[in-house]
Amino acid sequence: MEKLTTINALRFKLRETRPQGSIGFVPTMGALHEGHLSLIRQAKQECPTVVVSIFVNPTQFNDPTDLEKYPRTLERDLELCEEAGADFVFAPEVSEIYPYGFSTKIIVEGNLTRLLEGAFRPGHFDGVTTVVAKLFHIVQPDRAYFGEKDWQQLQVIRKMTSDLTLPIEIIGVPTIREADGLAMSSRNVRLSPEAREKAKVLPFLLKTAQDLLDSATPETQTDKGPVIAQWLTTLLESNAPDAKVDYIAVVDPETLISIDEITDTALVALAVHIGGVRLIDNRLIRRTP
Amino acid sequence: MEKLTTINALRFKLRETRPQGSIGFVPTMGALHEGHLSLIRQAKQECPTVVVSIFVNPTQFNDPTDLEKYPRTLERDLELCEEAGADFVFAPEVSEIYPYGFSTKIIVEGNLTRLLEGAFRPGHFDGVTTVVAKLFHIVQPDRAYFGEKDWQQLQVIRKMTSDLTLPIEIIGVPTIREADGLAMSSRNVRLSPEAREKAKVLPFLLKTAQDLLDSATPETQTDKGPVIAQWLTTLLESNAPDAKVDYIAVVDPETLISIDEITDTALVALAVHIGGVRLIDNRLIRRTP
Repeated sequence: MEKLTTINALRFKLRETRPQGSIGFVPTMGALHEGHLSLIRQAKQECPTVVVSIFVNPTQFNDPTDLEKYPRTLERDLELCEEAGADFVFAPEVSEIYPYGFSTKIIVEGNLTRLLEGAFRPGHFDGVTTVVAKLFHIVQPDRAYFGEKDWQQLQVIRKMTSDLTLPIEIIGVPTIREADGLAMSSRNVRLSPEAREKAKVLPFLLKTAQDLLDSATPETQTDKGPVIAQWLTTLLESNAPDAKVDYIAVVDPETLISIDEITDTALVALAVHIGGVRLIDNRLIRRTP
Repeated sequence: MEKLTTINALRFKLRETRPQGSIGFVPTMGALHEGHLSLIRQAKQECPTVVVSIFVNPTQFNDPTDLEKYPRTLERDLELCEEAGADFVFAPEVSEIYPYGFSTKIIVEGNLTRLLEGAFRPGHFDGVTTVVAKLFHIVQPDRAYFGEKDWQQLQVIRKMTSDLTLPIEIIGVPTIREADGLAMSSRNVRLSPEAREKAKVLPFLLKTAQDLLDSATPETQTDKGPVIAQWLTTLLESNAPDAKVDYIAVVDPETLISIDEITDTALVALAVHIGGVRLIDNRLIRRTP
């Protein structure tokens, strides 16, 4: 495995390996955990050459404190990348990606970036789409891997890729969870022991959403999105009264628009601050006919 | 030469020819004239495979009447492309480029898109950068050719390409002019015989700018951008009193910011309505030490 820090050096290397078969790409912000590693492993199974980028992208942080506190563990990350099968790690400085005078933005407009995270993190997705498109141009991968934990981000990137006809297959990879169900996240290390304990309520809420849907009757109305969302909110309040909810929503998995009656599949998505750390998670729920 | 109307068909063809050497790309809106043909000929000299796109891009027209009146001459264009050496013409329908639900935009921010044309054609450059990036992703050329007549567009595309690290060399090609100096433009066919006669004042103004600079003395101050711009405006008023000026400006050729004292090179750029047709033109002027 080789670590590269400049665009030119990476391009030069990839020019050699490209003829040997497809290139898989896993863009990350570092602080790698099992979730990232599952992306790298899947990429390695499907592509002879795997590139991982490690770049804490400042333009996607709407909150400067979040950017500052974002964990940075490059040496450990490099070891993990190598173990998971990466061939190249691209770890550029900010000035390599955003040189002086940089002034181009890629924006996906509409509900996909306006709803859920978009409502709470203004400009976040503009930062994501711009940096991901730039990384796509640098790496020119055949396939790119993203975690389903950031479900909305995955949809936004699919949309950008298809609108701009980027010749890249976008692959969503299921969320990896801790033993108690908490979704792996680089931000989890910032949870205090008590907050970490409390945080397990989030996967519990998501599991409960499926249980509620399974038990739907005309009386419970738990085949209605708003009814499930309200149940989950109440349940969170009783389990973690000091948690701050950004949203708990039952939405269409593709459009992210709130669903009233669940006839088939819905996405339960939530963003909750626990002990001062903002956590997001989601789960598809299915109605069994 | 082959004409293709779908992205998939063009990609399939280019997959075959790509290994044979570099691909040159000339994006156009059709209504081809000698200016376009010089781009195609230069591309063919430098690249074994040349792709020309013909697509009247609705999103870059801020004025619906201008879009409606834009000349469309596809059959003649195809003949001209073939004569000039094009291998493939990509002529998609609007729905092929902008399918239902299309919602991604590429924006270059700052002076480059705010000044000159940007001040008079809101949203124009957003339309240009979005469609050009999409066409770049479809064709994946090694080199792309743009006319210097649209000088600002050329700078905006250079900036987008460099900011997003598109692996494409952007080549500016000198403006081709009629015998009396009028810059070739698809919009020239809309000039009435009288307006066409009047329009030759525009290259005369640009030539005069160089003459003024050559004759600069402390008294004339014609090494000052604003002084030259004022002279040209007065000259236009006396030669074509009913012409409507959008701008006549002396600017830095790269940043497009107005230049006060010309020490080396400057760009004289103008946009003038003559007989109801908006014409643009520009010329580099140089101070001889």
